[in-house]
Amino acid sequence: MKLQLPIKHCRNCGAAVVLRVPDDGDTRQRAVCPVCNTIHYQNPLNVVGTVPYLGDRVLLCKRNIEPRWGKWTLPAGFMELGESTAQGAARETDEEAGAQIVMEGLQSMLSVPRVGQVHIYYRARLLSETFNPGHETLETRMFTEDEVPWDELAFRTVRETLRCYFEDRRRGSFSVHELVID
Amino acid sequence: MKLQLPIKHCRNCGAAVVLRVPDDGDTRQRAVCPVCNTIHYQNPLNVVGTVPYLGDRVLLCKRNIEPRWGKWTLPAGFMELGESTAQGAARETDEEAGAQIVMEGLQSMLSVPRVGQVHIYYRARLLSETFNPGHETLETRMFTEDEVPWDELAFRTVRETLRCYFEDRRRGSFSVHELVID
Ligand SMILES: [Zn+2]
Ligand SMILES: [Zn+2]
Repeated sequence: MKLQLPIKHCRNCGAAVVLRVPDDGDTRQRAVCPVCNTIHYQNPLNVVGTVPYLGDRVLLCKRNIEPRWGKWTLPAGFMELGESTAQGAARETDEEAGAQIVMEGLQSMLSVPRVGQVHIYYRARLLSETFNPGHETLETRMFTEDEVPWDELAFRTVRETLRCYFEDRRRGSFSVHELVID
Repeated sequence: MKLQLPIKHCRNCGAAVVLRVPDDGDTRQRAVCPVCNTIHYQNPLNVVGTVPYLGDRVLLCKRNIEPRWGKWTLPAGFMELGESTAQGAARETDEEAGAQIVMEGLQSMLSVPRVGQVHIYYRARLLSETFNPGHETLETRMFTEDEVPWDELAFRTVRETLRCYFEDRRRGSFSVHELVID
């Protein structure tokens, strides 16, 4: 996951910024430019992804990037400008797994305040089991609930999303699960 | 709403950036620093808010800030680092309306790709009708569905969220509504 580095210089003019509460009624310290007065905000980022499934199995990807190299994950990544959450989730599924899917409903929304992220997962029905993993993926594999390598998952957001997906599936009805990961 | 300005200078060292596709497998152009190699990402921002209600009425705020000065809106604003989506929504409801609430379920998630935003609204039950609006609000008022100034609402995200809230309420069952606003 990409961490947000501190802002040292103004994005507009390059001058060194100062950390202070702006005069516009804001209550938080921001990186403010003393030369051109640009205020720099740092806000949470969205990670968007899917639970690709076919029958009683889900698709996981073995990570070829840090952090958590070699651990298993659902296809997911940072949402980009110009796309919706669902479009971003579909794009990441294509980039990381090369999977052919039909997007379905929202499965989970998980806030991770410690790292300033919100993770948003959709169910996605696989149209085939032919995959074409990108450079961020060592291997793709289909797993039933019992086969999922629960202790080898990359992130708690992935574990919680898989857990509520399989629970919903056993119950025969899906809903949106909202969680906060400490 | 705060627009995202272009990045002209490196946040780390202040040098002028160049726009190019990084060498790390990325497929998009980013602002890259030719001096210290920092890659600058621009990603969508989350706007978090509530539908504060009591009985058959909802609370709206008349905006004292641009854009849409003087138009009516639900309490909402940019999610901050270190908070969950629900915490951010509760904070904005306090800052803009000074309303005492109990947070309830997720009502809507609206992607607005044109401006690079995702708007997330929760239902919030009001504990009283005593409000204490902040500097961003000219006036607070309670409205039934018929009384809502539908043509004087500030944003389409607010209109769609109110529309699905009142529909759910009439039907007697609430669910999460996901929309894309062009
Ligand atoms: Zn500046
Ligand atoms: Zn630099």
